[in-house]
Amino acid sequence: MPERGVSDRPHEACGVFGIYARGEDVARITFFALYALQHRGQESAGIAVSDGQRVSMHKAMGLVSQVFNEENLKPLQGYIAIGHNRYSTKGSSRLPNAQPYMLESALGPLAVAHNGNLINARQLRQRLLERGVGLSSTSDSELLTQMLAGAPGSTWEERIAHTMQEAIGAYSLTILTSRALYAVRDPWGFRPLCLGRLNGGWVVASESCALTTIGAQYERDIEPGEIVAIDERGPRSIAGAERTRKALCVFEFIYFARPESLLLGQSIYRARCGLGRQLAIEHPVEADLVMGIPDSATTAAIGYAQESGIPYGEGLIKNRYIGRTFIQPDDRLRRVGVALKFNPLPDNLAGKRVIVVDDSIVRGNTSGPIVAMLRRAGAREVHMRVSSPPIRYPCMMGVDMATREELIAARQSVEEIRQHLGVDSLGYLSLEGLLAGIGRPAESFCLACFTGRYPVGEPEEERKEAFDGAMDEA
Amino acid sequence: MPERGVSDRPHEACGVFGIYARGEDVARITFFALYALQHRGQESAGIAVSDGQRVSMHKAMGLVSQVFNEENLKPLQGYIAIGHNRYSTKGSSRLPNAQPYMLESALGPLAVAHNGNLINARQLRQRLLERGVGLSSTSDSELLTQMLAGAPGSTWEERIAHTMQEAIGAYSLTILTSRALYAVRDPWGFRPLCLGRLNGGWVVASESCALTTIGAQYERDIEPGEIVAIDERGPRSIAGAERTRKALCVFEFIYFARPESLLLGQSIYRARCGLGRQLAIEHPVEADLVMGIPDSATTAAIGYAQESGIPYGEGLIKNRYIGRTFIQPDDRLRRVGVALKFNPLPDNLAGKRVIVVDDSIVRGNTSGPIVAMLRRAGAREVHMRVSSPPIRYPCMMGVDMATREELIAARQSVEEIRQHLGVDSLGYLSLEGLLAGIGRPAESFCLACFTGRYPVGEPEEERKEAFDGAMDEA
Amino acid sequence: MPERGVSDRPHEACGVFGIYARGEDVARITFFALYALQHRGQESAGIAVSDGQRVSMHKAMGLVSQVFNEENLKPLQGYIAIGHNRYSTKGSSRLPNAQPYMLESALGPLAVAHNGNLINARQLRQRLLERGVGLSSTSDSELLTQMLAGAPGSTWEERIAHTMQEAIGAYSLTILTSRALYAVRDPWGFRPLCLGRLNGGWVVASESCALTTIGAQYERDIEPGEIVAIDERGPRSIAGAERTRKALCVFEFIYFARPESLLLGQSIYRARCGLGRQLAIEHPVEADLVMGIPDSATTAAIGYAQESGIPYGEGLIKNRYIGRTFIQPDDRLRRVGVALKFNPLPDNLAGKRVIVVDDSIVRGNTSGPIVAMLRRAGAREVHMRVSSPPIRYPCMMGVDMATREELIAARQSVEEIRQHLGVDSLGYLSLEGLLAGIGRPAESFCLACFTGRYPVGEPEEERKEAFDGAMDEA
Amino acid sequence: MPERGVSDRPHEACGVFGIYARGEDVARITFFALYALQHRGQESAGIAVSDGQRVSMHKAMGLVSQVFNEENLKPLQGYIAIGHNRYSTKGSSRLPNAQPYMLESALGPLAVAHNGNLINARQLRQRLLERGVGLSSTSDSELLTQMLAGAPGSTWEERIAHTMQEAIGAYSLTILTSRALYAVRDPWGFRPLCLGRLNGGWVVASESCALTTIGAQYERDIEPGEIVAIDERGPRSIAGAERTRKALCVFEFIYFARPESLLLGQSIYRARCGLGRQLAIEHPVEADLVMGIPDSATTAAIGYAQESGIPYGEGLIKNRYIGRTFIQPDDRLRRVGVALKFNPLPDNLAGKRVIVVDDSIVRGNTSGPIVAMLRRAGAREVHMRVSSPPIRYPCMMGVDMATREELIAARQSVEEIRQHLGVDSLGYLSLEGLLAGIGRPAESFCLACFTGRYPVGEPEEERKEAFDGAMDEA
Repeated sequence: MPERGVSDRPHEACGVFGIYARGEDVARITFFALYALQHRGQESAGIAVSDGQRVSMHKAMGLVSQVFNEENLKPLQGYIAIGHNRYSTKGSSRLPNAQPYMLESALGPLAVAHNGNLINARQLRQRLLERGVGLSSTSDSELLTQMLAGAPGSTWEERIAHTMQEAIGAYSLTILTSRALYAVRDPWGFRPLCLGRLNGGWVVASESCALTTIGAQYERDIEPGEIVAIDERGPRSIAGAERTRKALCVFEFIYFARPESLLLGQSIYRARCGLGRQLAIEHPVEADLVMGIPDSATTAAIGYAQESGIPYGEGLIKNRYIGRTFIQPDDRLRRVGVALKFNPLPDNLAGKRVIVVDDSIVRGNTSGPIVAMLRRAGAREVHMRVSSPPIRYPCMMGVDMATREELIAARQSVEEIRQHLGVDSLGYLSLEGLLAGIGRPAESFCLACFTGRYPVGEPEEERKEAFDGAMDEA
Repeated sequence: MPERGVSDRPHEACGVFGIYARGEDVARITFFALYALQHRGQESAGIAVSDGQRVSMHKAMGLVSQVFNEENLKPLQGYIAIGHNRYSTKGSSRLPNAQPYMLESALGPLAVAHNGNLINARQLRQRLLERGVGLSSTSDSELLTQMLAGAPGSTWEERIAHTMQEAIGAYSLTILTSRALYAVRDPWGFRPLCLGRLNGGWVVASESCALTTIGAQYERDIEPGEIVAIDERGPRSIAGAERTRKALCVFEFIYFARPESLLLGQSIYRARCGLGRQLAIEHPVEADLVMGIPDSATTAAIGYAQESGIPYGEGLIKNRYIGRTFIQPDDRLRRVGVALKFNPLPDNLAGKRVIVVDDSIVRGNTSGPIVAMLRRAGAREVHMRVSSPPIRYPCMMGVDMATREELIAARQSVEEIRQHLGVDSLGYLSLEGLLAGIGRPAESFCLACFTGRYPVGEPEEERKEAFDGAMDEA
Repeated sequence: MPERGVSDRPHEACGVFGIYARGEDVARITFFALYALQHRGQESAGIAVSDGQRVSMHKAMGLVSQVFNEENLKPLQGYIAIGHNRYSTKGSSRLPNAQPYMLESALGPLAVAHNGNLINARQLRQRLLERGVGLSSTSDSELLTQMLAGAPGSTWEERIAHTMQEAIGAYSLTILTSRALYAVRDPWGFRPLCLGRLNGGWVVASESCALTTIGAQYERDIEPGEIVAIDERGPRSIAGAERTRKALCVFEFIYFARPESLLLGQSIYRARCGLGRQLAIEHPVEADLVMGIPDSATTAAIGYAQESGIPYGEGLIKNRYIGRTFIQPDDRLRRVGVALKFNPLPDNLAGKRVIVVDDSIVRGNTSGPIVAMLRRAGAREVHMRVSSPPIRYPCMMGVDMATREELIAARQSVEEIRQHLGVDSLGYLSLEGLLAGIGRPAESFCLACFTGRYPVGEPEEERKEAFDGAMDEA
Repeated sequence: MPERGVSDRPHEACGVFGIYARGEDVARITFFALYALQHRGQESAGIAVSDGQRVSMHKAMGLVSQVFNEENLKPLQGYIAIGHNRYSTKGSSRLPNAQPYMLESALGPLAVAHNGNLINARQLRQRLLERGVGLSSTSDSELLTQMLAGAPGSTWEERIAHTMQEAIGAYSLTILTSRALYAVRDPWGFRPLCLGRLNGGWVVASESCALTTIGAQYERDIEPGEIVAIDERGPRSIAGAERTRKALCVFEFIYFARPESLLLGQSIYRARCGLGRQLAIEHPVEADLVMGIPDSATTAAIGYAQESGIPYGEGLIKNRYIGRTFIQPDDRLRRVGVALKFNPLPDNLAGKRVIVVDDSIVRGNTSGPIVAMLRRAGAREVHMRVSSPPIRYPCMMGVDMATREELIAARQSVEEIRQHLGVDSLGYLSLEGLLAGIGRPAESFCLACFTGRYPVGEPEEERKEAFDGAMDEA
């Protein structure tokens, strides 16, 4: 799970939710579902609701608990709703990019919540502009919504299917119209999306943890390329786009999804345990203690400990109240390594040979100070184990990782990284180990950040920057 | 000048401004110009700026002094700017309706500030929706901006001219593109718009008072149907639409514009004095004191006093700090007539025969309590004189007056109104007196609220309500 | 009436109010009374209420309309209340200085609202500190409240009377205890305070305009040195301190009080008219127009016009929406004299000989630019008339005027000031004219700012600065 | 560590910090120290600083990261500082109760930060009131500050020692004067307070975790009854009050303090592991999995697993973003047990016999639903183990636990509680086990909540309520 504040982790981009349930307070349910999906995005939150005729919406910057109160939730009356949590990426933290995005169209009102990233967005924008459609933001969500509003076809199903022919890239969508809810997943299935039942109604969510929180039953994943239309007749599955090859982002298993969520019908927790076990098989070392970097690597560390027989324990205590602070440490504090996020547990570390499990290394700039902190606390040896392979290629599907130049594994060998981090040994999980740990074949996943083999070719470069140069709203 | 808080006045809809001036801090100048135009709208304020390439914008709810600070003004760098103050109309007080409205288009970025009201907006919306353009708000401003973005023509001049062929109603626009500023006025010239020079650059504004405030020189009014394009070559006048007949809203002279502004090359102050003089000629009465309802009727009262020879004086003192309060008086306070806005001056009123000049009566619900207050303060006789004719027809051009049913003069005779207000005599200025007072022929003006003869036919009904019923963002 | 924003006016320091009325919503009434007293202070507002046992309070920075809403007004239940508006003085704009000030004492809860300034505050502070009482702010209000809490005596009457023996300077107080309301005025009567009846209950207020607004009847002024105790038995007058000589601040008549208020049983409006008339007698000049600097000098200008027979008219239009803005004009705007507050009326000024009436000149830094603006608008001659004598001495009683060095009349002769302002002639009202205009003998007033004869001797110097140097809360 | 939101845990009351370090940015260091102590209080935060002459302060409601920014931190210049985090207790969540509390006194400015609770506060208040000192809040902190301001003695040392003779109860204080920092601990040592060195300067903090975060070295605990005065001569230990018997709150070991903090020179983490081991010895059971309620019981669960040999694992996943929300679940959501805080891990639970370790049970209202959630997720058996004895008596020293009536163990036997929670077996740690687990004798601790033997007798009852009934500020 991503954390607020600085971290050397890939960053996801959004959680989506949708519900169709007569007789339920759908806005309230959507609120609690977004609450459970908060780890997928903390920048803005929004809910749109339809009562069959009128569509109303509230969205604002902030955590879902900050954005909503009884007063602004109350007008959101109806029986269909969608919701969205947006991840904060630098430079685009502004209300016009908040979702859902809502438009009036010739077929009536339309609201869209989007998780993903289009790789032909520049070309799609250009096509819209040339058709005489003005665009008010740089968001893919507005792009998709205007595409839907102007697509050929007299029904939403046709328009959605047509839009799926044009959009290339990652998109898990929930779409709200006056009378129906649509759940849409791109033909590769880059980002997760699942279907559940709730008390005679239906829900869709980025992760099944949201279903658990609201008391819904997990039914199945939405298939890559599938449109699920939900209206008074219940859900219907429509083929939206031909599936080429599955390419679920493997980082959902490694890091993004909450441990209790199910993906491909399988538990994230069990997969992470498996990664830890596999890591122990590939990179054994004699040691006194296995610890994880809290909280995201805890499960893999437990797996490592189980497989290796070395006791599991805690070596770092996390400050649970860490929030965004704008106060910077001064030079001395920086030198002593002001430890806002973690404090070491000297008791457990002093004189010990310690195996530290982390789930990934992106830039490699936060692990070094943590290792130094462990050594200052008395650790005799520090062995770093990473429950994923070296990240050597940037993500093109909306995961805010780093540029190629920033990726430490793109520039340095494992031995160089070991020296850089100052650890006694360093072991990355192999690609085979990763797949074995999860228990799925390579064909299920997008592994491009490890292999450089992108499922849908190279994306446009620098698109957003160019456009941001032309128009900006603060 | 309109006042915040409850008042029985027609309500205007917005002030616009534009500037093209190399070497000037155009955002700062726009700020001060909007400050001077604050009386035209207090709901939201916004400024968009171009530096020749990049267009940036800031807008928010509130007075211009609340919306802008040095921090958010600073990024608005460039040499072209437009600004907007929006009037607060009930039910649509929301950020998505704030202006300027900004879009990226095939010809580059585009921002529009609009004062007015389109009477064929419903039809124009429908045309856009059918063309596959989604609309995110109910504002005419978004409508015009999307029309401009999609109009035929390879230059902005062509697109603006084309849009002017389609849009029917009142619109005084300032339009910002990367490289140019456009000032546009509808063929009837419903709402004012004037041109000025500033230090080698050019400015346009709803009223000349904004020019005075920023040290610019008034040049001339923008003509009905005219487009003034301002770029590096200076201003060029382009015929945008054929002028049918002039129809400047006469309420600009009666009430909207600030007294020091010039309209049709003539001073508002002098016109209001003239209305007061004419009123004294048409409705003389023996009295001891002439007073105006502060502040808007002060000038007409001075004119009445000059003509009649009866001394001018003050009878009501206005609370200068009156702001929006959400605290309601309780029943007793309401019975005693809690006087938030005015207190009487018993010294000047006791035992006197008082002539009270007001500029207009719309619903007739605020004058009665004022008359009662004057009587409680000792006035022996109260003679009401109104410096405009009875308002019998609703405005279709964006002035938020009232529905036909709410207009007291649409339902009641002058004698009935007199009894309703509880005054000893009541005199409205005649239509002829109005024109004589201003010193212009009837052909210059829209007089529809007095005569029912609308310059451009009956408008669509109930448009906004229907649409608001379909989509709402809070 | 003082205005927000920069002005060359003396600045007052607070409005106070109190009410004892069973069966009334006393907090709501206090709200509306503070609304009417808003001109006396715009920095902070507060209301304390007692229901006979429990005392509750809300106060915050801002205008009374900003500070209160139905939510925070609702808990303020009871039948006794006091309220306070605080004037914003630089460097002390902080919540701990907001009033009322509330303490629990040995006799129960106590809340105090104070208008005035103590000249022996330093000594009084020292006495408290030595008695072992810690002080949390630099405000005289906390000082008075702690003095009351620790004064000898077993009743509040005794304690108040004792405190009046010790406190030297200006204080008009409303004091709230569980069971009673007290209105207290210093023996000189520097600041106003009046008593009124409301529906079987009783109210006290800095000015009678507050009584008018809430529908109360003016009864009489509280006498200098008097304590009025109001409880279930009604009001009782108690001699609090022996009156030495009356010294009502004459600037209440010249500028501070609202025109419709009564002072010494007499109308401020009539007094200001009288000052204008007297000014016309003392400083006649041939001219075409008499105008006042709006809004505070309007009444005196009308008086001058009546006496001189020269027509009254408007020459400057005030921006009614002027609020605090943090945006500064740049150099060019400053050079052209960016006219935020006023615009001229060239129609009324061009070619005219103009008499400009102002109520006072303190530093002399704002009149010059106004005169220049009038000349640019075409005024042929500008004759400045001031409805008060030259201010040569700083105020020691809490009116934020200026230091001696800043007072233009302390450094320059009238002829030098005339040249400085750039007017054709300049006439100040004489001291005799001032008293004649008001119609009261010199013994009624503090005239120290004109004469240098301070009613209670020289005050301590630099007190607050020294203390602020020791403790500060932001 | 306490968590925000509803929890069945005892609640602590505040973290304090102090620093004396020339050449350091002491306000910034205090900020980071408060950040590390955030778990001790989340309602308000404040910092007071002295530069040797001037004392300045900023405090506000909210988390320390919300309260401070570079702008308000900047004026806090100096070389001595204290800081405070306040715990949120219902009904007193108001700025006047925020700390530090600052007063000007006869010896100069004085600021106090307080962790604890006085049991003779009512009597102390009464003494102050009778001495003529008014009190503006209900906080013990103001009480202590006014006591210090008025205590006999010509030095702060004397005054502090005198105040320690009068105050009975729990108080760990940091006190700031112009020239010195004082650290004070009550004679029983109820709440922790430790001393550290920082770069030639000195720091004091509630817990050593704050020292680690800012790079300071732990020196020793401040002794019960000790005053440590720190000024330009360094720290001096002064006997403030005779120590009667040590009574450190044992819940610091069980739950309050962060695991990495040291208390009595010993690690909290090791103690909690010890409690878990002891629990395994006292209450063994056959099972497949040991889990803790995250996060506070994790360490004890690990200890239980180590001792029992049963594998440790996770059974509940905590929502890391849980914040205060004002949205309430509706009835259906409540029925399905909307799981805001935790989701179960069916993978780890299904078909398993599970040992759930918790650190304490106060009211017993949150464990039941958690047990039900575990069973729904498939747990075959649920065995609850509690790493502290039954809480049968309320705390009198400021820990917000519950009233006697609310404590489930005060009303029910262990068997009844077992049935109430719906677990297969329930085992509380014995008092002997608690002491053995920590490794300290009973004489070190206050164990009153288990034994009812209060170290300093019964406190006054109902004090605050009575006073709150008399005065309230919102």
